[in-house]
Amino acid sequence: YSDSYSSAGDPMWSYFTAVAGQDGEVDAEELQRCLTESGISGTYSPFSLETCRIMIAMLDRDYTGKMGFNEFKELWAALTAWKENFMTIDRDRSGTVEHHELSQSIAIMGYRLSPQTLNTIVRRYSKNGRIFFDDYVACCVKLRALTDFFRRRDHLQQGFVNFVYDDFLQGTMAI
Amino acid sequence: YSDSYSSAGDPMWSYFTAVAGQDGEVDAEELQRCLTESGISGTYSPFSLETCRIMIAMLDRDYTGKMGFNEFKELWAALTAWKENFMTIDRDRSGTVEHHELSQSIAIMGYRLSPQTLNTIVRRYSKNGRIFFDDYVACCVKLRALTDFFRRRDHLQQGFVNFVYDDFLQGTMAI
Ligand SMILES: [Ca+2]
Ligand SMILES: [Ca+2]
Ligand SMILES: [Ca+2]
Repeated sequence: YSDSYSSAGDPMWSYFTAVAGQDGEVDAEELQRCLTESGISGTYSPFSLETCRIMIAMLDRDYTGKMGFNEFKELWAALTAWKENFMTIDRDRSGTVEHHELSQSIAIMGYRLSPQTLNTIVRRYSKNGRIFFDDYVACCVKLRALTDFFRRRDHLQQGFVNFVYDDFLQGTMAI
Repeated sequence: YSDSYSSAGDPMWSYFTAVAGQDGEVDAEELQRCLTESGISGTYSPFSLETCRIMIAMLDRDYTGKMGFNEFKELWAALTAWKENFMTIDRDRSGTVEHHELSQSIAIMGYRLSPQTLNTIVRRYSKNGRIFFDDYVACCVKLRALTDFFRRRDHLQQGFVNFVYDDFLQGTMAI
């Protein structure tokens, strides 16, 4: 209630209410529809539903699987930042990120990964060796979430963590 | 070459070649199209692309991101088994699996998970509390792959594993 009261003058409010529909919250399917229509991925394919779910999981602090207005605005800001980042990384302006472009970008973000792990990631998120914007976002969000999950348990910052099975699954199944 | 030679008399061979197209291998998009048309999920929505990717990653021993004929047959058999399993679990015949149905099924499969981890999983794979067939498959395949990954490192079967960061990421980003 307080949310809608304070949001009345916000220029994104009417857009949000149109996307959210009757229940006043945005779920993964609604987000997919609105991102596909926005054309942000730069292709004619539907924006990845999986990426929508991953993004909602990242922001969804009250665990409803849906986004209220503030979460939606936060996501919009994050997506704009990812898009700028994506265009910077795509040095040869092919519209997609390739293996060497991703390697550089991941290094610049401060992750230190082995060549094998980088290969695994490229294989998983690329189509014929090319990573499209929506898959790039899924990749970056997962990389950050899994790294955060690992770090929160690496109390001594040693680079290794002793996981109990249930905790391991809880962190990795959700992402 | 030997693959096509031995497959000539197989009734699935012509179906496979139709799905695979010119390159003679099935990628995630082709698999999605064929599963959507097959109607296996029992809904009018497209079969989840993410589930297709997860299934291919599971079977893809030569790491090409595509499936040859033998991998395709293996996947078809696995899917048929998942579908039977799904219909058994769906006790109230709602067409979807709900929280209590999933809990029972996961326990029967032999996984011991805490209530919090079960909640996390249901939240991640359900839409309005209902888990559809394609998301159910993604959930089961991931659960199995992550458990296998954990077990292979749990040499003493103690239920906990000391992970190095890079190895942790390699296993969890791929799935
Ligand atoms: Ca809604
Ligand atoms: Ca590029
Ligand atoms: Ca049911």
